[in-house]
Amino acid sequence: MSPDVSPASPIEARAAFRDGQAVPSTGWAPGYAQANLVSVPREQAYDLLLFAQRNPKPCPLLDVTEPGAWTTPIAPGADLRTDVGRYRVWRDGELVDEPTGVQGLWREDLVTFLIGCSFTFEGALLEAGVPVRHLEQGGNVPMFRTTRPCRPAGALHGDLVVSMRPIPADLVATAVTVTARVPAVHGAPVHVGDPGALGIDDLDEPEFGDPVTLHDGDVPVFWACGVTPQVAIMESRVPFAITHAPGHMLVTDLRDVDLRVG
Amino acid sequence: MSPDVSPASPIEARAAFRDGQAVPSTGWAPGYAQANLVSVPREQAYDLLLFAQRNPKPCPLLDVTEPGAWTTPIAPGADLRTDVGRYRVWRDGELVDEPTGVQGLWREDLVTFLIGCSFTFEGALLEAGVPVRHLEQGGNVPMFRTTRPCRPAGALHGDLVVSMRPIPADLVATAVTVTARVPAVHGAPVHVGDPGALGIDDLDEPEFGDPVTLHDGDVPVFWACGVTPQVAIMESRVPFAITHAPGHMLVTDLRDVDLRVG
Repeated sequence: MSPDVSPASPIEARAAFRDGQAVPSTGWAPGYAQANLVSVPREQAYDLLLFAQRNPKPCPLLDVTEPGAWTTPIAPGADLRTDVGRYRVWRDGELVDEPTGVQGLWREDLVTFLIGCSFTFEGALLEAGVPVRHLEQGGNVPMFRTTRPCRPAGALHGDLVVSMRPIPADLVATAVTVTARVPAVHGAPVHVGDPGALGIDDLDEPEFGDPVTLHDGDVPVFWACGVTPQVAIMESRVPFAITHAPGHMLVTDLRDVDLRVG
Repeated sequence: MSPDVSPASPIEARAAFRDGQAVPSTGWAPGYAQANLVSVPREQAYDLLLFAQRNPKPCPLLDVTEPGAWTTPIAPGADLRTDVGRYRVWRDGELVDEPTGVQGLWREDLVTFLIGCSFTFEGALLEAGVPVRHLEQGGNVPMFRTTRPCRPAGALHGDLVVSMRPIPADLVATAVTVTARVPAVHGAPVHVGDPGALGIDDLDEPEFGDPVTLHDGDVPVFWACGVTPQVAIMESRVPFAITHAPGHMLVTDLRDVDLRVG
């Protein structure tokens, strides 16, 4: 199965990832919400839960599991240890491995946070006539670390990460309106234009994902990104954590439309 | 200062409550968000934070403090130990006192949760031409325990509490639309009509607040209520907690309009 014929249903998508597909999930199972995954020991879970509450734009929580559980009501039948295409394993803030499954690393005390992902609103952008350049260009969305600090929580601190989409100037307002309706997947942009104000020097060198080509008249528009807690885990040297690899999301059974507000 | 001449600003409202005013805060400082208050020891704070995440309609979090802190960025200058009109003190799930200040009971490990309150959207209802009967009748909003269980979190479990407002049948849709825009203060109703389906036997006997008279053609409309965590504290026999007394909210400096989505 190649990423050019993306599975249409969440259960098919998860089965493909479980079977070892390790490509970004952008465009997969259209109409269904995708989620960032972060698993930390119960001892660190309070700080992460508070970090998410204090930074709801990058960390909109879709579910938080019981310690040790690898199931979630938002993706019935999913195994959180295998159903993401690629994981990242962190020890003391250092990336130590990027496996396609984490069954062998699972612990009884791991609490998993599932965080909304902006891939979810790309369907709504397309429906509204707003082009999504990285989909057109067949790449993963570009993500950047900013110099804007998140509000810390206990031992957790770090800078905001954003995803960037080039939007034609006359469609920026539409893109804002469409995404403002889905706060559960990051909502409205945090910043429009001027990458320098966010501390981003070069749009062609994203920290995560792939560079994307701007068309004439495109404005770079920045949304808060669910990779933000990974940067906090790194900067705060959390003893142990498992996350998804950027762009390799958990496909859930939540429908995009059910997350819309107003 | 009588409740008939309610202070116009949050700072004046808080000063009045600090000085011993012990009346419900409904209608005070119009245009500013009011908040439910729940303080629990750090040991119970993870369960309460998770309970709020899992039950966002009754428990939309506006702020969670550091342990021991009695200040909050959403109400600069406020003292959380004195600026609510009336508090409730709970031990092992039993209500043991209803003081007007809790300075003498404060502990270094208390984490305070400030939870959105539906009083906040009453201004928007009035602006949209929807009457608010309990304000017309000079009473506190009626609140009811339902038989609908919340999703539990750790040791915390309990049934949903709702506030009820009688709405003319031809304005129910307006009331839904207006309140759907403010998920941070409970959002859209959880239920329209038929109190029996929520396990409410008699609308004239609210568990908290005052009964309200329905006009001919009014439909009872039910919103999730921030008193829900008090019922969870009671039912789960939490060792120690301080809350506001129902209807006696913390007046914050957040403006209603800033909480609107979409």
